[in-house]
Amino acid sequence: MFVPGLIERKRDGGALAAEEWRDLLAAYAAGELPDYQVAALLMAVFFRGMAREETAGLLEGMMGSGGRLDFSGLGRPVVDKHSTGGVGDKVSLVLAPLVASCGVAVPMMSGRGLGHTGGTLDKLESIPGFRTGLSLEETLAQVGRLGCAMIGQTPEIAPVDKKLYALRDVTATVECIPLIAASIMSKKLSEGLNGLVLDVKLGSGAFITDAARSQELAETMIALGTARGCPTVALLTAMDRPLGRACGNALEVEESVMALRGEGPQDLMDVTMALAVEMLVLAGVPGGRRSGGDPRAAARSELEAAVKSGRAAETFKAVIEAQGGNPAVVDDPAILPQAAEVEVYRASAGGTVLQVEPRVIGRAVVQMGGGRQKVDDVVDPSVGFVITARPGQSVTKGEPLASIFARDAAGVDLARAALGRAIRIGKGHADPLPLVAARINATGTERLA
Amino acid sequence: MFVPGLIERKRDGGALAAEEWRDLLAAYAAGELPDYQVAALLMAVFFRGMAREETAGLLEGMMGSGGRLDFSGLGRPVVDKHSTGGVGDKVSLVLAPLVASCGVAVPMMSGRGLGHTGGTLDKLESIPGFRTGLSLEETLAQVGRLGCAMIGQTPEIAPVDKKLYALRDVTATVECIPLIAASIMSKKLSEGLNGLVLDVKLGSGAFITDAARSQELAETMIALGTARGCPTVALLTAMDRPLGRACGNALEVEESVMALRGEGPQDLMDVTMALAVEMLVLAGVPGGRRSGGDPRAAARSELEAAVKSGRAAETFKAVIEAQGGNPAVVDDPAILPQAAEVEVYRASAGGTVLQVEPRVIGRAVVQMGGGRQKVDDVVDPSVGFVITARPGQSVTKGEPLASIFARDAAGVDLARAALGRAIRIGKGHADPLPLVAARINATGTERLA
Repeated sequence: MFVPGLIERKRDGGALAAEEWRDLLAAYAAGELPDYQVAALLMAVFFRGMAREETAGLLEGMMGSGGRLDFSGLGRPVVDKHSTGGVGDKVSLVLAPLVASCGVAVPMMSGRGLGHTGGTLDKLESIPGFRTGLSLEETLAQVGRLGCAMIGQTPEIAPVDKKLYALRDVTATVECIPLIAASIMSKKLSEGLNGLVLDVKLGSGAFITDAARSQELAETMIALGTARGCPTVALLTAMDRPLGRACGNALEVEESVMALRGEGPQDLMDVTMALAVEMLVLAGVPGGRRSGGDPRAAARSELEAAVKSGRAAETFKAVIEAQGGNPAVVDDPAILPQAAEVEVYRASAGGTVLQVEPRVIGRAVVQMGGGRQKVDDVVDPSVGFVITARPGQSVTKGEPLASIFARDAAGVDLARAALGRAIRIGKGHADPLPLVAARINATGTERLA
Repeated sequence: MFVPGLIERKRDGGALAAEEWRDLLAAYAAGELPDYQVAALLMAVFFRGMAREETAGLLEGMMGSGGRLDFSGLGRPVVDKHSTGGVGDKVSLVLAPLVASCGVAVPMMSGRGLGHTGGTLDKLESIPGFRTGLSLEETLAQVGRLGCAMIGQTPEIAPVDKKLYALRDVTATVECIPLIAASIMSKKLSEGLNGLVLDVKLGSGAFITDAARSQELAETMIALGTARGCPTVALLTAMDRPLGRACGNALEVEESVMALRGEGPQDLMDVTMALAVEMLVLAGVPGGRRSGGDPRAAARSELEAAVKSGRAAETFKAVIEAQGGNPAVVDDPAILPQAAEVEVYRASAGGTVLQVEPRVIGRAVVQMGGGRQKVDDVVDPSVGFVITARPGQSVTKGEPLASIFARDAAGVDLARAALGRAIRIGKGHADPLPLVAARINATGTERLA
């Protein structure tokens, strides 16, 4: 393997074969390939891109480095969801117990807050005692017992992805669709899934703000999943405003509990249900596809029954208990860490809410202590916002638009300033993105709005 | 200094400021910037290129890392030449003593064989005892005494260039004009020159085979030199066939000695004289520019007189002696290492010599042991070719075209096969490049053929 020759080929627009990616990544995982050659290669990939076939070879090489979950003896379909990340996006916390309570196994593997977005692991850890660092064995056992686990990436899963991601982070090679797609799919496909649903965010709060590139990312991941025998479906959903009302770790857990009881904000309920329906359809539950009826309508009824009966909330309780957390939060969210300062934010003028800019809100949560600005920062779970103002809503001067939850007066000031920038009120009308814009699968794109 | 942000800016088509390059390269030289970030940055530079101003900033940063020669007390103009490299290109060996013998100081700093091309240092070291590793102090003293030294890059000169070059070599970022230009100029301008002449090779034996890119490289180096107060001129010369007849280290020293006596092959004499004239004109010797006459004609007379009188050859002798070599080679080249096997290569058919492909010849010399295939290979100075066939010449079957100088029978076989591929004989006519096609300086390009 003459590595400079491989870099040169990629640099000049050629492709590396699957065996070449396999050998490169195996050498990199083993510490036998220096970071500087991988960095040069990744930058060449950034500029040249990758055709689907080459991306599949890269993915193969990344998965080759690690262990996998094996649910073959489970007797239940295994389906997971991945979100490209947003502000107020607590869907995973609702979706995993909800779908599991309908007979689908959900080994939900999530990440931490990144940039302006929150992370499922940080949210879960605001529940006193909750442990996200399960081993592969613990995960297998818990999914077998409860149908659900909510964990972080284990050291066994795609270890070379971790190493690559750390390198990309310091060499300006993160924003590259084939690299993003292969990174996500190397982890998700190591879960031994029968199906995968992607929540691809559109709008200014998404990591990728360009709609065409979001579509390309979705299509790339769908092609990768499908080629490896894991049917993959994506929904394109709105991230031009926060999802739901709560933004901040403990506040989002509280809102998730409400949603599991059927009392969440409408947009959160709608996005969660839309994704849950896709998961159930991929899993073949409740047999709608086979019965000849409308599988989506059947799945929706099943999901609504799971909420109404309390089964969904009970499953969340069981997962919390199994992972060392205090399950009482599901009945009494006041157990969650509470902010020292709580203030109401009011409209400074009357008019129409034209925009609630999610990126400004997400950054403010991080700056208030609810996320990390440095790798070793400790997250304060209590801080954040509950924003009731929605784009399109008419408001009068002095009307409450949001509540601020802060550590101290400085946090309140910061939050006020952020809300002032994020919530734009004026004449005219708001033009928010449709909540669920399209469904994409291996056969094409279906516009839903 | 947030390095990922700098890489990202370059990646997205922006430029780094001179202070940013300075800080980056200082950190890199000090071992405080990891190779992987520099590798990613260099690959971004490869794709995005660099405007002249940014290249000047890069050069500034590279020169900032090292020491410089200071000839300010010398009382003589200091001029050097750089060649982009070719096959049979022994011009430096003739040019340095020739120009020095006309009153110009020439601190000739050269390199080793690279790829299919030979290196001046390897050629000089075929002279028994010759030492190319002088210190800066020794170089200053010798140039003061003899007007000439012929040395390798000292550790003090642009040390970060060495580190960068080693990294570029293993990350496929060598072939990038601003990086090549800054690398060359960082070394040459550290010599404290009053003028610099570039020999930019055109044709299949050159490193850059594309004429437009060669022109761009020349113009970039000229702009860099001029901006730093070092008037720089380039000649574009032919490298679609070997220069002169000899290809191989000791064989080229022998041919150089012949040239210093005025008995070299015509093409070698012509290219050497053309470059020497430019060096003398830049140096203001012999005052032609000031006298109102034709400075080039005056310079040429001066150079011809230096050859005819034996001054040029005597200067080479003095340099060899000062650097520990046996000066008797100038009178008796048979002192040089001799090949064990010498054979004549003859035309297998009559016709016109359509081509003598230099790259094939250069590679054959390396494979015969006359260059390095690995970094630590020992060079055999004795092997190579003397090729008398010239493009355009009519030959009859059985006519001698070349002599082969090899270590053993395997070397002879390899050489025969290479000559068979390199020397194309047929009907029709040859179309060689003009020997000296153009002169480029800061004001523009003047076609000479």
